Amino acid sequence: MTQMQFIRNLIIETPSVPGNFAKVAVAIGELKGDIGDIQTIKVGTLSTIRDISIQFTSEEQLDNIVAAVNRIGGGVSVHAVTDDVLHAHEGGKIAMKSRLEIRSLGDLRRVYTPGVANVCKVIQQDPEQANYFTGISNTVAIVTDGTAILGLGNIGPVAGMPVMEGKAVLFDQFAGISAIPILLDTSDPDEVVETVKHIRQGFGGILLEDIGSPHCFEIENRLKAELDIPVMHDDQHGTAVVTLASALSACKQTGVKLSESNVGQIGLGAAGLAISKMFMAYGVKEMYGVDRNQDAINRLRESGGTIAGSIEELMQTCDIIVATTGVKDLIKPEWVRKGQIILALSNPSAEIEPEIALKAGAAFAADGRQVNNVLGFPGIFRGALDAKAKDITYPMLIAAALAIVDSTKPGDLVPHPLDPNVHLNVANAVERVANVERE
Amino acid sequence: MTQMQFIRNLIIETPSVPGNFAKVAVAIGELKGDIGDIQTIKVGTLSTIRDISIQFTSEEQLDNIVAAVNRIGGGVSVHAVTDDVLHAHEGGKIAMKSRLEIRSLGDLRRVYTPGVANVCKVIQQDPEQANYFTGISNTVAIVTDGTAILGLGNIGPVAGMPVMEGKAVLFDQFAGISAIPILLDTSDPDEVVETVKHIRQGFGGILLEDIGSPHCFEIENRLKAELDIPVMHDDQHGTAVVTLASALSACKQTGVKLSESNVGQIGLGAAGLAISKMFMAYGVKEMYGVDRNQDAINRLRESGGTIAGSIEELMQTCDIIVATTGVKDLIKPEWVRKGQIILALSNPSAEIEPEIALKAGAAFAADGRQVNNVLGFPGIFRGALDAKAKDITYPMLIAAALAIVDSTKPGDLVPHPLDPNVHLNVANAVERVANVERE
Repeated sequence: MTQMQFIRNLIIETPSVPGNFAKVAVAIGELKGDIGDIQTIKVGTLSTIRDISIQFTSEEQLDNIVAAVNRIGGGVSVHAVTDDVLHAHEGGKIAMKSRLEIRSLGDLRRVYTPGVANVCKVIQQDPEQANYFTGISNTVAIVTDGTAILGLGNIGPVAGMPVMEGKAVLFDQFAGISAIPILLDTSDPDEVVETVKHIRQGFGGILLEDIGSPHCFEIENRLKAELDIPVMHDDQHGTAVVTLASALSACKQTGVKLSESNVGQIGLGAAGLAISKMFMAYGVKEMYGVDRNQDAINRLRESGGTIAGSIEELMQTCDIIVATTGVKDLIKPEWVRKGQIILALSNPSAEIEPEIALKAGAAFAADGRQVNNVLGFPGIFRGALDAKAKDITYPMLIAAALAIVDSTKPGDLVPHPLDPNVHLNVANAVERVANVERE
Repeated sequence: MTQMQFIRNLIIETPSVPGNFAKVAVAIGELKGDIGDIQTIKVGTLSTIRDISIQFTSEEQLDNIVAAVNRIGGGVSVHAVTDDVLHAHEGGKIAMKSRLEIRSLGDLRRVYTPGVANVCKVIQQDPEQANYFTGISNTVAIVTDGTAILGLGNIGPVAGMPVMEGKAVLFDQFAGISAIPILLDTSDPDEVVETVKHIRQGFGGILLEDIGSPHCFEIENRLKAELDIPVMHDDQHGTAVVTLASALSACKQTGVKLSESNVGQIGLGAAGLAISKMFMAYGVKEMYGVDRNQDAINRLRESGGTIAGSIEELMQTCDIIVATTGVKDLIKPEWVRKGQIILALSNPSAEIEPEIALKAGAAFAADGRQVNNVLGFPGIFRGALDAKAKDITYPMLIAAALAIVDSTKPGDLVPHPLDPNVHLNVANAVERVANVERE
């Protein structure tokens, strides 16, 4: 769903005269540069220097933006283009740290030999104790083969490592989970399953990440069946949880009842199929899907969904539309029916721009900028680990989606990802369901 | 080499009268309790409460010590026995932490999507960049199958996890290395090698840990041959480095020249064989070894060592003796020759007590209490990673041993493990040799 996007910081000097910054903002905006954080570095009597973060989609676009700002004249100029993203990645974004400081020989004897032997013996006699005296039950492996890294495709696990480290950062910051990237040199389901099983004892859960379709399906199914710890492919079910939450928020705002609606999914890749299955697990009137790929269509049919003959037909039949095709402007405005809810999630270019969809009669329309997996996986795993769940089930995932909806401010589609309450609410909801399911 | 040892803290109240604590110390000492850190918790007018850390070898011994202290009378009593070691292990000793704090949406966009995509692309175009923009080149896998955990034997990798976490703590604290325990559910060399190779791209180095003999030999040899990153089995070569350093220190103190000495190794398990090979790599007059196991003997012979007919014969022939058998009092005092250097390294009961060896004529004698691997592996890997070495070679290991000797204060056998200079010196020495070897 994600096209390539860049972030750079422009260090821009303007004369200290009101209106100058607006000219800069206009120049950037006209070239579709998306302005992010702005820091004022220096406010002088004569000139002001700002560090402006911008997001864009090609190097050429950046060059044009810089040229346009420099053309404003009257003392406005770009001093430098810096890459804060690269800086933030220097040396990697994560590190395994000691939770204790070793300040004395006594500390050393406690955490290492000879003290440690006693802890080993305690676990040997009662393996359950490993939950208390090691970090295993709070550790999640982020497993990837690097075949479907963001919108970049099969670039390999090493080039994909920044994504895995990013996920580990979010696990740490939002859920207090110790997450370890595992980069696999194989995509063969037999080898992947075998390898994960061989190292599984060190982990309390497995997050499958950026593994391509269709091998992701077999890998996830087999690992879920063969391991007694939570396993989840985030690109499928994490995405589906946040999408269900978004749809529920949209329904709430428009007075539509999801359970009585026909839902249509355009694009049945790993995410699209998982979204369809999530809606069916939640319970909708009928779940329709469309895709050009026959295998993808068969997978939806096997899962209990109905195949639409075309996108147009699906638009005719369904009250709620979700699109995850990566194809810009795929949905024609004339297909939109009055009162429809349309979530066109492809990034950065939606299948239909929300404004256009609304103008065409939709009751609610959104694109994928806010629908971010970070709202789901940290809390889902926190809850599953806390419940010592052996699996991640649909009731747990639906509970997560409902918790996201509960945490959403009126009028918003989803909560702010930095709101710590979201992750806590998701974790609590998932843990409660997991506890009920075990009983 | 290590027998079971326990650490507990006794909370002991004594009347505030000089001499009372001495009585406590005597009572503990007479029952061979080894007193560690002591903290005074309360000094009152009438009574003093201390938290006394003691080390011992059986639960029965602890009961006897507590009873003996309570028998002192006159108001001396044990209030509680606490387990600070277990407390220190609660929740595990390590966690994967973010190196950056996520405080704003801008931070999130930098470390996660969409910013991260650009970093992935940079690495995709030039894989070398992964050394700078991910933590891979600063990450070491601590790989174990749990078959030879300390002196506890084959207790499995989960029960051995506290040791692995302890090693990760030391990697972090002494060398700034991010170390990740990998717990294997297999000891089959084919499966171990295959599994490590499948996950190898996420790591800059592999520390094999507490893998039993003889399968440790095949596993290490194959991984060293098949991977292009540093691989080291610590129980073999880490131990050998610190033993070589100890022998060199002993030689220095006694005016003996190691290169002109006959060295004898009693016990040819994984550590003993590695120590023998290390001495041969350093260069000694002749390397003798003895073991009851024919396979062990064959391995030494294949490595170029000479087999002694018996321990007695080896004691007759050799100037420097190293013992790693785990057998208490194996070396008879009457076998000791005048001027010998004897390192009887088994813990906690040496093959010959240093005092007895010295009385029998040895020029130098030490047991294994100080000869701790922590002096070696953090600096060795720091140096190897910094040099981007593809292997850990004997010249690198010998350089590490010499750096340990250089960092040893006159009169000491080895440096204090909490002296940060040791690890820095070892790292620098290893890096220098690795750089020379590459040229």
